[in-house]
Amino acid sequence: MLLTLDLAGTFAFALNGALTAVRVAHLDIVGVVTLAIITALGGGIIRDILLGALPPATFVDWRFLAVAATGGLIAFLFSRRLGRFTTSIDVLDAAGLSLFAVTGASKAHELGLGPVQAVILGTVTAVGGGTVRDVLVREVPTVLSSGLYAIPAMGGAALAVAATGTGVDQVLGAPAALGAAGTCFVIRVLGMHFGLDAPKPPGAGRAGPASSGDRG
Amino acid sequence: MLLTLDLAGTFAFALNGALTAVRVAHLDIVGVVTLAIITALGGGIIRDILLGALPPATFVDWRFLAVAATGGLIAFLFSRRLGRFTTSIDVLDAAGLSLFAVTGASKAHELGLGPVQAVILGTVTAVGGGTVRDVLVREVPTVLSSGLYAIPAMGGAALAVAATGTGVDQVLGAPAALGAAGTCFVIRVLGMHFGLDAPKPPGAGRAGPASSGDRG
Amino acid sequence: MLLTLDLAGTFAFALNGALTAVRVAHLDIVGVVTLAIITALGGGIIRDILLGALPPATFVDWRFLAVAATGGLIAFLFSRRLGRFTTSIDVLDAAGLSLFAVTGASKAHELGLGPVQAVILGTVTAVGGGTVRDVLVREVPTVLSSGLYAIPAMGGAALAVAATGTGVDQVLGAPAALGAAGTCFVIRVLGMHFGLDAPKPPGAGRAGPASSGDRG
Repeated sequence: MLLTLDLAGTFAFALNGALTAVRVAHLDIVGVVTLAIITALGGGIIRDILLGALPPATFVDWRFLAVAATGGLIAFLFSRRLGRFTTSIDVLDAAGLSLFAVTGASKAHELGLGPVQAVILGTVTAVGGGTVRDVLVREVPTVLSSGLYAIPAMGGAALAVAATGTGVDQVLGAPAALGAAGTCFVIRVLGMHFGLDAPKPPGAGRAGPASSGDRG
Repeated sequence: MLLTLDLAGTFAFALNGALTAVRVAHLDIVGVVTLAIITALGGGIIRDILLGALPPATFVDWRFLAVAATGGLIAFLFSRRLGRFTTSIDVLDAAGLSLFAVTGASKAHELGLGPVQAVILGTVTAVGGGTVRDVLVREVPTVLSSGLYAIPAMGGAALAVAATGTGVDQVLGAPAALGAAGTCFVIRVLGMHFGLDAPKPPGAGRAGPASSGDRG
Repeated sequence: MLLTLDLAGTFAFALNGALTAVRVAHLDIVGVVTLAIITALGGGIIRDILLGALPPATFVDWRFLAVAATGGLIAFLFSRRLGRFTTSIDVLDAAGLSLFAVTGASKAHELGLGPVQAVILGTVTAVGGGTVRDVLVREVPTVLSSGLYAIPAMGGAALAVAATGTGVDQVLGAPAALGAAGTCFVIRVLGMHFGLDAPKPPGAGRAGPASSGDRG
């Protein structure tokens, strides 16, 4: 079950990474598929490095690479059509974020880490791929510039760990994990829709994050 | 003893990372605290990955995360007052650099690495967090653009390893480690104060490092 | 034999990293040598982290660090003369790319990874150091912006793995490895010379990669 959610998150991030490559950086097919794979697998690889679970699952299990490459190719071919829905790139990012927060936290918890550490690793898994993507195309990472990005990921990871801890996941299984991911997803999408931001430093009258003028 | 110095370095880098987030990138509270944590813990995490000591100490010992988050929050709340001292952001960076050079080198030496490797790992620990910070806010890293940054860190790390090797640290303990860190700190601060730079390539008549116009 | 090729690739990437530091970022001697070392050792360190072979070979075997630092110093001293040949910086990058693709894939294969995984790890070794270099000097990484960069690396890595798998390397040894590296090198250099690019997304009428105006 976790594997299915993990592959779904990989696919969402691959589409998102490929669309970012097309729109923000105007890359060719190799660059598009490469950025799709890095965005899709980056979070999981960082998680596995921090857990010491090496080589990372990506190299042991070829399905992740296949799903990431397929997602990148699909987004490359249909980038024009997908690009029409201007919010799709953000919604795909929110989907990957939610799914990886839950699977990352669950995997860390299964490998014996404490609940707090599992929540942190889930959050790192969720925001890792997107952060590497933003660094490679020279954007300020979303995790820094967007108020409601790390917080819903931490919430989803915490719900997933709580479900494992209380045994709810033994009874409910998939619904518990999907509920945790769904909560994260809804908060993230609502935050984007209403432009919710976390508070700025006291007395800061400046315009916005450093990246505001760049996405253009 | 090493733990105390390590936590002090974590606190200094957390304050520095948070002030960088406020001044250079104009981030909100989540971005400020996130950048504070990444700056504070980045060097130690890179060190532990290279040593194969996984999961990193950060995840085993919650105190590092607590100190880093607290430092980030304090700097967020008092960013205006702290910002008045225009040099404080650089002095905090120098303090973290010095403390991590000593603790990083000592930890590597304790885990059985040779003296040269321990000096390198100490330097990597010292400059790692700041380098990740600079990449995330799109600056050319200080370790590349500033002449006297890696060199004092290598000096402090070498003194710490020499103290361990000669048994001085058995007798002197804290004073030996503090002396090594203090030497690094003084060289770094003097270098900044007098604008000392390492030599440029022969015949290079250009203005300065690529980042010169960006810090504004 | 592999060690010789690995050291040759390290030297080529060190020269390339140092020239990049001089030309693109106008760094001083410490920055030049630091970027040379990071470019030269980055790919191998990423490979060893992903393989779980920690601490990385760089720290166990001092020769890599010595070769990287020497290459950086040489390029620093002769940067003016080397800079006259405007293509040398790209040819050195192609040489490092080819050598590391072969040695990275062979090392991964020797450590028991499957052929597909070995090809991927060889490619990651080949493009890793240059990607870190580009991120640090704030360029869009070559692996994303240049069509024929990852593809020749994958080709060279695949030839190296095929030679190992079929036992050709037992008989031919050095010639097989050099042939694989040479094939990658020739494709990469021809691709640069004729300005070959992989296809862009359907309907994309934009000028070029985001980095086009930056190298100056």
